[in-house]
Amino acid sequence: MQKIISLAKRRGFIFPSSEIYGGFSSCYDFGPLGIELVENIKRSWWNRFVRSRPDMVGISTTIIMSPKVWQASGHVSGFSDPLIECKECHARHRGDNLLSESQWKKLEKKLEKAKDKEKLIALSLPSCPDCKKKNYTLPRNFNLMFKTFVGPVEDETSTAYLRPETAQGMFVNFNNIISSSRKTLPFGIAQIGKAFRNEITPKNYIFRTREFEQMEIEYFIPEPKNEKEWQKTFDYWRKEMWQWIDFLGIKRKNVKENDIPKEELAHYSKRTIDFEYKFPFGTKELYGLAYRTDFDLKNHEKMSKENMKYRDPKTGKEYWPHVIEPTFGVERTVLALLVDAFDEEKMEDGTTRTVLRFSPAIAPIKVAILPLLQNKPEIVKKAKEIEKAILPFFSCDYDQSGSIGKRYRRQDEAGTPICLTVDFETLKDNTVTLRDRDTMHQRRVDIGSLKEEITKIINKD
Amino acid sequence: MQKIISLAKRRGFIFPSSEIYGGFSSCYDFGPLGIELVENIKRSWWNRFVRSRPDMVGISTTIIMSPKVWQASGHVSGFSDPLIECKECHARHRGDNLLSESQWKKLEKKLEKAKDKEKLIALSLPSCPDCKKKNYTLPRNFNLMFKTFVGPVEDETSTAYLRPETAQGMFVNFNNIISSSRKTLPFGIAQIGKAFRNEITPKNYIFRTREFEQMEIEYFIPEPKNEKEWQKTFDYWRKEMWQWIDFLGIKRKNVKENDIPKEELAHYSKRTIDFEYKFPFGTKELYGLAYRTDFDLKNHEKMSKENMKYRDPKTGKEYWPHVIEPTFGVERTVLALLVDAFDEEKMEDGTTRTVLRFSPAIAPIKVAILPLLQNKPEIVKKAKEIEKAILPFFSCDYDQSGSIGKRYRRQDEAGTPICLTVDFETLKDNTVTLRDRDTMHQRRVDIGSLKEEITKIINKD
Repeated sequence: MQKIISLAKRRGFIFPSSEIYGGFSSCYDFGPLGIELVENIKRSWWNRFVRSRPDMVGISTTIIMSPKVWQASGHVSGFSDPLIECKECHARHRGDNLLSESQWKKLEKKLEKAKDKEKLIALSLPSCPDCKKKNYTLPRNFNLMFKTFVGPVEDETSTAYLRPETAQGMFVNFNNIISSSRKTLPFGIAQIGKAFRNEITPKNYIFRTREFEQMEIEYFIPEPKNEKEWQKTFDYWRKEMWQWIDFLGIKRKNVKENDIPKEELAHYSKRTIDFEYKFPFGTKELYGLAYRTDFDLKNHEKMSKENMKYRDPKTGKEYWPHVIEPTFGVERTVLALLVDAFDEEKMEDGTTRTVLRFSPAIAPIKVAILPLLQNKPEIVKKAKEIEKAILPFFSCDYDQSGSIGKRYRRQDEAGTPICLTVDFETLKDNTVTLRDRDTMHQRRVDIGSLKEEITKIINKD
Repeated sequence: MQKIISLAKRRGFIFPSSEIYGGFSSCYDFGPLGIELVENIKRSWWNRFVRSRPDMVGISTTIIMSPKVWQASGHVSGFSDPLIECKECHARHRGDNLLSESQWKKLEKKLEKAKDKEKLIALSLPSCPDCKKKNYTLPRNFNLMFKTFVGPVEDETSTAYLRPETAQGMFVNFNNIISSSRKTLPFGIAQIGKAFRNEITPKNYIFRTREFEQMEIEYFIPEPKNEKEWQKTFDYWRKEMWQWIDFLGIKRKNVKENDIPKEELAHYSKRTIDFEYKFPFGTKELYGLAYRTDFDLKNHEKMSKENMKYRDPKTGKEYWPHVIEPTFGVERTVLALLVDAFDEEKMEDGTTRTVLRFSPAIAPIKVAILPLLQNKPEIVKKAKEIEKAILPFFSCDYDQSGSIGKRYRRQDEAGTPICLTVDFETLKDNTVTLRDRDTMHQRRVDIGSLKEEITKIINKD
């Protein structure tokens, strides 16, 4: 993991936020290569799941919404983690992280009835992971929503929240979408956007951060008559999610489904599958797929008094559609991609080359343009000409500093699938070498057919 | 203006946020057409100013940064508006909105020395625009940054802010960018992202909202030896901004430059030009171009004690680069586009058709696919086939409900450049009609050449 963090900083994928001020609260920024990777992920997702599908529409809702939305969704009262503080070293822990989730749930139930709660805590919990002593406060529910104040007065009436998920923005706009887009069931609403959770213990690099981005779909289906009817759509999206994982080039063997047991399901869900990735720090949730029933629309109707039902255009019947929800985290996708693509290859000469084996479709730079020598004006001129010609079509990096071997290694670390070298032969016969990142094989290609050749390589996977 | 707001809601461009809960604090959501328009704007901007330029890199920094960043930038102490309350009706006003900006500045200076400040305020200000009485509080500086608390304790040590601009994220990452991307001067860093300002009086629909998105460039140049040196780059970006306005299809006659007088410049700027658009509610800032000198890097060096200088690779000289900053607001671009494209055309039959004359390159839907009759299975089947064939290349809308005339009008209101109709002739000779949004001229085109014909129309402007 340390190798990946260091590579990600060195090559400009991920920087610690506000680093010159000592960093801040496990926030991270995407650097030049990081943001291109993110852009490729988000654009591919949007094209795949929204633009190229007649049964999907997009939306983009605000981060600060009416606090009534979060009262209705249950987040104001219930979106909290059990916070326990060590009285010795003042470290803060999530109770459900000190034990397993099911053990914690049992303990919570016992605590409700217990007379000597302090004693029960002392008996049930392991020592503080930080100071190894055992002297805890009682757990208290800590709400994970970031609070802010809208307008010049800071009090309860002006309190608002940063959204902890993008989903509610889609539910509250259900009527607006229906009336403006004229969609009929089944159809989905998709959104990409930031969400915020005031985590007690953010950790594992960009895996759990307080500010993160979601790509989310709420797929609305007719009221199912039986289990099979919603399961069909659930399984359809399950397959779609696996295909997306394939598209990204993440190896299937590193991802596994975790069908959440009934007793651990969220209150709104009848079934949830977590897609878990084998991260170096453990097998953890990458994506999620949930059947949310008609919980959200029904609840918003109850709280807002607006009719949130769908009217079947053929039968005239009114009902709350049911919802299948595939969710994808942007930062977790980036992290899984970095981990999955990272490779250290032993070379014949005994050295090691570090290479990110990104699928060409999502690689931040497609082509590196390398003039063999930076002090030969004809070669530099030719290289610049080629850059200018292909830059409108492929994201490029022009690099002329250091030996050609060093530059290849730099591009390997950036995951660039193609290195294009301009050398003395180029000036004679108008060809360049194209070097393949994975095989390191080089071949000469005529400049006239560059666009075609590069397109072929990029689209091969 | 009311017509545009109503059209934007009806067609799914812009919805009031949290509308089922009575809306919230002049926040707005982008609906299905709105988000496609926004996507087209942001992607075009990114491709134009980042991906296709060797002298630019992108970045994406967090919304919640270290509070030290905002202390260093001067936002904690100085990013405020003068808040004045009417004691009669409790309306809140910005002092500098009750007067002209220069009048207000003069009044502020007088207030510093005045003995009877209440009297001076009463003499200098007009009556309350809301209740027409004149009984004001004294002005107080109200900081526009949204505050929040990071971690479980709510106090000063945990206070953080939602960024009021994206610019600082680029400055604090200057060293990381230089060392990872190996760029040499001149070069720029670009970012697209949300920013937040707790405006006293948000207004004019999506023109001034508390949550908004910026597309911003910090372009770093060598320390200029004289005025001419920075003015050259300033003028270069000025032209680039006009060309961007042309690309969007916004009419030049509706935009004018406002070269801000020296006495009104922000403290960090030596020159600023506002690009102002003739909105229905007045001529107001659309974009901005500022010469920020070396203010930001110098200041961050002073506050962080990190070396923020650039080392010239040839001469070895170290200095703070100077900065030219072109800024583009996403919501203001959308609003200017809606206003600029909106047209009501008198028809021969006396009716009026409402049409959004978007440039095809940024129109949310490129092609509407309309089966002439929805109860003829052969026609519907053919239309669906065509949709499937062209959807991977162009964003489409399939619409089969209502008369063909009504459907044309709906697409005119959405700004769709091409309506493609499948009729009885299609079944005979494999042709469809393409209707041009602006001329309403129709012509028959062979299905085999559809992709080519549509590409030609989309790229024509």
